[in-house]
Amino acid sequence: MWRRILRQFSTKVKPKNLRLESISPKVIRAEYAVRGDVVLKSMEMEAKLKDGVKYPFTEIIPCNIGNPQSLGQNPLTFVREVLSLIVNPKLLTLPGISQIYASDVIERAQILLNGTTGGVGAYTMSQGLPVVRNSIAKFIEKRDEMGEVDPNNIYLTSGASGAVEFLFKIIISSEKDGVLVPIPQYPLYNALIALQGGSDVGYYINSSKGHWEVSIKEMEKALEASKLKGIRTRCLVVINPGNPTGQVLRKENMRQVIEFCDEHDLMLIADEVYQHNIYTDSTQFHSFKKVSQEMNSPIEIASLNSISKGYHGECGLRGGYMELHNFETQVKDQILKLASISLCSNSVAQCAMELMVNPPQPGSPSYDTYTAEKNAIMGALKRKSQLIHKLLNEMVNVQCNFVEGAMYAFPEVKFSAKAIREAKKKNMPVDKFYVFRALEETGIVLVPGSGFGQRPDTYHFRITTLVQEDKLIDLLNRFKAFNDNFHNLYS
Amino acid sequence: MWRRILRQFSTKVKPKNLRLESISPKVIRAEYAVRGDVVLKSMEMEAKLKDGVKYPFTEIIPCNIGNPQSLGQNPLTFVREVLSLIVNPKLLTLPGISQIYASDVIERAQILLNGTTGGVGAYTMSQGLPVVRNSIAKFIEKRDEMGEVDPNNIYLTSGASGAVEFLFKIIISSEKDGVLVPIPQYPLYNALIALQGGSDVGYYINSSKGHWEVSIKEMEKALEASKLKGIRTRCLVVINPGNPTGQVLRKENMRQVIEFCDEHDLMLIADEVYQHNIYTDSTQFHSFKKVSQEMNSPIEIASLNSISKGYHGECGLRGGYMELHNFETQVKDQILKLASISLCSNSVAQCAMELMVNPPQPGSPSYDTYTAEKNAIMGALKRKSQLIHKLLNEMVNVQCNFVEGAMYAFPEVKFSAKAIREAKKKNMPVDKFYVFRALEETGIVLVPGSGFGQRPDTYHFRITTLVQEDKLIDLLNRFKAFNDNFHNLYS
Repeated sequence: MWRRILRQFSTKVKPKNLRLESISPKVIRAEYAVRGDVVLKSMEMEAKLKDGVKYPFTEIIPCNIGNPQSLGQNPLTFVREVLSLIVNPKLLTLPGISQIYASDVIERAQILLNGTTGGVGAYTMSQGLPVVRNSIAKFIEKRDEMGEVDPNNIYLTSGASGAVEFLFKIIISSEKDGVLVPIPQYPLYNALIALQGGSDVGYYINSSKGHWEVSIKEMEKALEASKLKGIRTRCLVVINPGNPTGQVLRKENMRQVIEFCDEHDLMLIADEVYQHNIYTDSTQFHSFKKVSQEMNSPIEIASLNSISKGYHGECGLRGGYMELHNFETQVKDQILKLASISLCSNSVAQCAMELMVNPPQPGSPSYDTYTAEKNAIMGALKRKSQLIHKLLNEMVNVQCNFVEGAMYAFPEVKFSAKAIREAKKKNMPVDKFYVFRALEETGIVLVPGSGFGQRPDTYHFRITTLVQEDKLIDLLNRFKAFNDNFHNLYS
Repeated sequence: MWRRILRQFSTKVKPKNLRLESISPKVIRAEYAVRGDVVLKSMEMEAKLKDGVKYPFTEIIPCNIGNPQSLGQNPLTFVREVLSLIVNPKLLTLPGISQIYASDVIERAQILLNGTTGGVGAYTMSQGLPVVRNSIAKFIEKRDEMGEVDPNNIYLTSGASGAVEFLFKIIISSEKDGVLVPIPQYPLYNALIALQGGSDVGYYINSSKGHWEVSIKEMEKALEASKLKGIRTRCLVVINPGNPTGQVLRKENMRQVIEFCDEHDLMLIADEVYQHNIYTDSTQFHSFKKVSQEMNSPIEIASLNSISKGYHGECGLRGGYMELHNFETQVKDQILKLASISLCSNSVAQCAMELMVNPPQPGSPSYDTYTAEKNAIMGALKRKSQLIHKLLNEMVNVQCNFVEGAMYAFPEVKFSAKAIREAKKKNMPVDKFYVFRALEETGIVLVPGSGFGQRPDTYHFRITTLVQEDKLIDLLNRFKAFNDNFHNLYS
């Protein structure tokens, strides 16, 4: 009251209650370069382009984020047909519906709807619809061939990110709790560790002979260093296939990782969202759970999967799951409580997940179209990853490892001292400077390596392998011209 | 390696790395009774019912959670028709589509799809699709009549819960950071405060003359007490219309709340998800933002809304938004970063939100059906809330305030010393004991008042007002028989 009256006589503006210096420092500390300032700049430029401002290119091409459908990848027909029926079940009673949709589409929609209590508009069980978790369990049984899978160990989440949030809430209670994370890494991990107030314990992924490799030595080194700081490391994160590094782990390497976890009392978060994105014939995806079962290892594993990647690319629907292996029941109950607090993940994405793990089978009416669409997408992803690898390696001062899996290349760029000085003047690391210049000159949106972490005095960027083939060569040629000119300018 | 070899000679089972005593105490502390042990028990019983076990009832009736469509409320036809087109845009090219859907359905789907970059399968901007935020801004302009609303202040979230998560991450960094929350309250708030490691500062909501009332005196008392504990309280949560208490705030009361925030440097979280659920002619919903604008108040307000409530009841889609009013730009940038880290809320729910805030207008082909469906749902909700109020008050030892809004009644029950002793023997508060007995005898799932907080030595339960009308009278009669018998037994 007094305050309001006094304010009428004052010319001072009352400061806000929430200011940068008064909000949680954990939030300030968190970084997420995949949608950072380079992306904000690109959005500004896109708006200007639309307003008629002239640039040396006609469109902004977002290669910063694994978002396939924004770059023209089509959703699978079967998936979207079923989803249209579950969001509007009245279509099922339409007299001509069997002329519009194949019988297996209609049948599947009915199965999914029967698996809900009141359709997709009702909250589901916190852990996810049983009809979906049962199909996921069968999918894992078939994938791993290691016997029965319990649907009660499966939790549907909002993308795989939602699963990581649940796990870090359980694992981290203070800055004394550490999580071993790869460098470079998909920065979701460090961001969520920072938000949770924990400590990231980074282990380097080695680059050698044209490949990225996960090394136990690096993990041991990181773990030792963290112990000296009094950090109690609880958990190891491995991304396989790698993001941003694209490596696909060999079984022998995975066995070492599992032994390392056992030796050092670590639970393992196996980020396996790219399990369908494998591009070489010499490599194969194995799940960490399968390999640990073969070894009879007792370690706890949370295995993550997502509808956003693979050949579905349904990023916008926000669907994911995690399977908890070897977890204590009481701990699973706590995770279930966390899931209950956020009520449930969205029902449409849960159903899309069911469609991903349970595709049409040979002989069913949608099988041929489904298979043709899947093969077209996978074929293109494979060709594009090979093309990008080849053309990047033809650029001055750029060296790119083979893209075995996932959706990214993470080439190293060697910069001159002059370029590094120039970047310093602009108050940014040279890889960011380079990425900003590339955006301004070619319209391509990349993420600087510093956003993922990299060895000191090395510089990288991440580029997705998603641009449609008819545009990709032209884009890479323009990018090569920029790159070669950049290095010439600062030589 | 050694460890594995040693294990072969040992009969001891290695303890798990994650155990109740080794995980974050913040998680253990969090409670969420809406899906707590009463619900787990009801799920067990439901499975047994299906297996042929005999109970004195034929079905479990979930009155524990505001989940309208699970209890037979139908989704709005217009909403689901548009959604079916946006999840399967190929339907738009079907020759007979204009015989199936009205022109405004088709038009709206096209507008929404044009507002995406690559359809609903692509990640949206972290803050949400501009086409959706623009419609929300117009909806608020029309609702509040206080001039222009900036779509950049609107953040699409995963239900309203997602908005609260963002806000608490910003506000709370340690147990010294307090949030004023109502008692009783929707327990999401206390659960998220616990997970974030902050302190809940509870203020009582008064019950008098058949109404629930928010009192500034209670807020002041709570704030004073928290100061003595060294807690710096940053934020006030008000739920209007109230959950679980159902009161609708009068404007004079809201003005006092706003002055209180101004006086004590608090930002205000206005949980307004029940803004369409008003059941009496004498009360009206006013947004806190509107009232604060009328007062020319400088306080920061986050106003929450959701597609899960109102007459849409689209809980399963998980859509919500918050509008940030008077927030510092730098703080909004930090919230945008948080949104970026979780990439975006799901695109289907975003579109459903657009359909909620921008319904068909008079003269458009879907208008009549939409209006008829809406009125039927609202009429039923009103009748049911009045019926529940009336019949609860006819039960022995039960007193229920008027349900002015939201979807719940929160009656007080007087228990005998004998009943309280009996409950103590079973190691639970008497309201939980009562709710468990009600479940076992009638199949009704309620939430005990202790799950929401209540004044010491008072006891309540929450019941939703959602059961379909044809079942409701019978249910309440069975419940009355149980209640009267319970009090007779323990008299």
